[in-house]
Amino acid sequence: MPYFDAASAAPLHPVARQALLASLDEGWADPARLYREGRRARLLLDAAREAAAEAVGCRPDELVFTPSGTRAVHAGISGSLAGRRRVGNRIVVSAVEHSSVLHAADSHAAAGGTVTEVPVGRSGAVDTNVFAAALDAGTALACLQSANHEVGTEQPVAEAAEACRAAGVPLLVDAAQSLGWGPVEGGWSLLAASAHKWGGPAGVGLLAVRKGVRFAPQGPPDERESGRAPGFENLPAIVAAAASLRAVRAEAAAEGARLRALVDRIRARVPELVPDVEVVGDPVRRLPHLVTFSCLYVDGETLLHELDREGFSVSSGSSCTSSTLTPSHVLRAMGVLSEGNVRVSLPAGTAAEDVDRFLDVLPGVVAGVRERLGAPASAPATGAADSASLVVDALGRRCPIPVIELAKVIGDVPVGGTVTVLADDAAARLDIPAWCEMRGQEYMGESPSERGGVAYVVRRLT
Amino acid sequence: MPYFDAASAAPLHPVARQALLASLDEGWADPARLYREGRRARLLLDAAREAAAEAVGCRPDELVFTPSGTRAVHAGISGSLAGRRRVGNRIVVSAVEHSSVLHAADSHAAAGGTVTEVPVGRSGAVDTNVFAAALDAGTALACLQSANHEVGTEQPVAEAAEACRAAGVPLLVDAAQSLGWGPVEGGWSLLAASAHKWGGPAGVGLLAVRKGVRFAPQGPPDERESGRAPGFENLPAIVAAAASLRAVRAEAAAEGARLRALVDRIRARVPELVPDVEVVGDPVRRLPHLVTFSCLYVDGETLLHELDREGFSVSSGSSCTSSTLTPSHVLRAMGVLSEGNVRVSLPAGTAAEDVDRFLDVLPGVVAGVRERLGAPASAPATGAADSASLVVDALGRRCPIPVIELAKVIGDVPVGGTVTVLADDAAARLDIPAWCEMRGQEYMGESPSERGGVAYVVRRLT
Repeated sequence: MPYFDAASAAPLHPVARQALLASLDEGWADPARLYREGRRARLLLDAAREAAAEAVGCRPDELVFTPSGTRAVHAGISGSLAGRRRVGNRIVVSAVEHSSVLHAADSHAAAGGTVTEVPVGRSGAVDTNVFAAALDAGTALACLQSANHEVGTEQPVAEAAEACRAAGVPLLVDAAQSLGWGPVEGGWSLLAASAHKWGGPAGVGLLAVRKGVRFAPQGPPDERESGRAPGFENLPAIVAAAASLRAVRAEAAAEGARLRALVDRIRARVPELVPDVEVVGDPVRRLPHLVTFSCLYVDGETLLHELDREGFSVSSGSSCTSSTLTPSHVLRAMGVLSEGNVRVSLPAGTAAEDVDRFLDVLPGVVAGVRERLGAPASAPATGAADSASLVVDALGRRCPIPVIELAKVIGDVPVGGTVTVLADDAAARLDIPAWCEMRGQEYMGESPSERGGVAYVVRRLT
Repeated sequence: MPYFDAASAAPLHPVARQALLASLDEGWADPARLYREGRRARLLLDAAREAAAEAVGCRPDELVFTPSGTRAVHAGISGSLAGRRRVGNRIVVSAVEHSSVLHAADSHAAAGGTVTEVPVGRSGAVDTNVFAAALDAGTALACLQSANHEVGTEQPVAEAAEACRAAGVPLLVDAAQSLGWGPVEGGWSLLAASAHKWGGPAGVGLLAVRKGVRFAPQGPPDERESGRAPGFENLPAIVAAAASLRAVRAEAAAEGARLRALVDRIRARVPELVPDVEVVGDPVRRLPHLVTFSCLYVDGETLLHELDREGFSVSSGSSCTSSTLTPSHVLRAMGVLSEGNVRVSLPAGTAAEDVDRFLDVLPGVVAGVRERLGAPASAPATGAADSASLVVDALGRRCPIPVIELAKVIGDVPVGGTVTVLADDAAARLDIPAWCEMRGQEYMGESPSERGGVAYVVRRLT
């Protein structure tokens, strides 16, 4: 049963499993104690820290273990902001950071701080010049992920770090998605990561803080983990995390190349096999194992459900798959289609045959969902034009219906005529312009609708 | 090799180990995902929550899993204080709470809040009336442990909860040391615990918040664990924690009675076997598996080291075994001797023979340490009195030297005469009065010494 959601959680690496089992007997005691069980636990903890630090590219005393990647990000951001409170209260983040970064930024804003969000281009990457321009004398911290968790695009971290250095601002890199593939290049100041993303166990994150970076841990302290991560160390899991990081790194070059070719196959074949698909994210500067595409006129939740029935576990940034009924903030920041969104992230060891079977199954699954939704055929309608302008009422209808209704009637207005879509679903704001871009039609803008919701106006060009 | 420090961390229970192994394959995926691996993880998480809630005595939706007991305490305290900010900013804690509670209270004080510390008697228990009197209209939260982690004394939690209910104040119970032995009785509002104390794995704490308790989680949120514990769930470990809690509870009555008898043996025999020992903590209202005693004229660190050489792993609240060179705050609050302090906490399954061997070994170990330190013989010296008052300079000397020097010369002053001990070691403030109490001498008080440090004055009565 192929599992294609490694970016959420990778299956436990065999080395992680072995290390976990081996250290259950040796690593349960308190490493702060001086008796033999404590000393053994301390040796395991020290060795794990050295191995993890070597993989990160920092000194062991710069690295602490946290209970999760999310907690590493939270501790890194709050500690840096507090450490540089006298410098200023601005935090600069890219618009496509992981929610743990954005939530920490929101908390900072709620406490009176300033947040500057750096936009990304259509590929999902920030422009280094734009990122650099956001840094000012009052910037306490900048955050940039090494690679995006939803679309796989790599960020220009080394260049951003150089800009941060020039501006005297520490850079925190969320390396959760990339650390298993290799160290983060460049002069970052703080780095956060999460073991279960590289095949380590849950319950372990990493936070590295370079010597010389001002850092004031927040919250009640204790004496563990240099005062940066209170609470009893999750020790057998820490050992497993470090051992598996070393193991995946040893395999990273070969496995990365293999998965990169499989992802290239998906990137090339999906648009050939499935009409009206947009493959998103940078095709080259990207994580080796991750690809995301969106399918017009498809309900993401149904698509995931149907793929699950076929045995494929994938993720989605569609609004209908989120608890808030809004599309993924990453797709929104990129300005790409969100409906029928599918993220495929291949765990190490994925068989080429499973990718081929996915490519075999996908067209029929998408066609089936479209048929049930009454989606228009692939080619744009070119029937006789009845009227110079039409209004489509999709109020109360969820994604992808507003876009389907738009596509159904665009052929009913003459070239130069307009279709106005009334919709109150949050995804429409992203998906109607994205549809226009994919279809070569002109998106003219939105205004509040008299009947509630929003009126989106599209001019027919072809 | 007998390990007698279960109160720091219990060895992994066999059921925890089995459950951990079994769920490594089923429980690694993200329980928030809807595909089959996610649904399996969700089922495991839900079942673990139900089992843990049943053991705690709350509803499953009142309980969240945290990364540690410390984090459960921190989240419980910060969330309650924030939720009742309009009521007031006072937190009431006992003086002998775990450091995680006291550090959270310190953080609250640093942020402008008010902390009231309720003193304890010589047994380590709070007086319910004193606790109740500390609650006022501006009290946002009260905290009381179910049983003390250093001396084993049970607190009157049910009575305190009743007083809290009458005052309209929520009570947070730190049940870290007792939850494996049974549920916490009474109408508590919040409860925190830690799996590795009952034989579960590291990396798992519990926080229960009763419905209706005002609670505003602090720090950046996410959607996991009801918004009360951000970060990917430590899932196989959570399963192991819940399974082992159920298992230790099934054995608690029988094993508790067996260990209680072993502890009674230690409590009775140690004062018979070792001269100048104070066994501390309540002899009856106590945890079944824990006993603490202090040995006059003994250096705690050396004692632990020698016991470790003999194969016994124990803990100590002596100043020389802490990084801050101050005695345990618990012993200080109780006003009992801290030098030569030994905490014995028996893990489930401890063999009676190991306890007997400990009792065999201990007298020789203590005598050896005393001999090397030049400690006085057990009986107080009764030589001819040379002078009505003597000054002993122990400045710059660490525990237990100031007390040893005092004991050496007390016989050199006549009954009614005084010995003044000059000392700058923090333990002297606790141990000189404690020595007087043990020896039937009169402790007259302290004053700053002209030569630095503190002058402690003792009058010879016998």
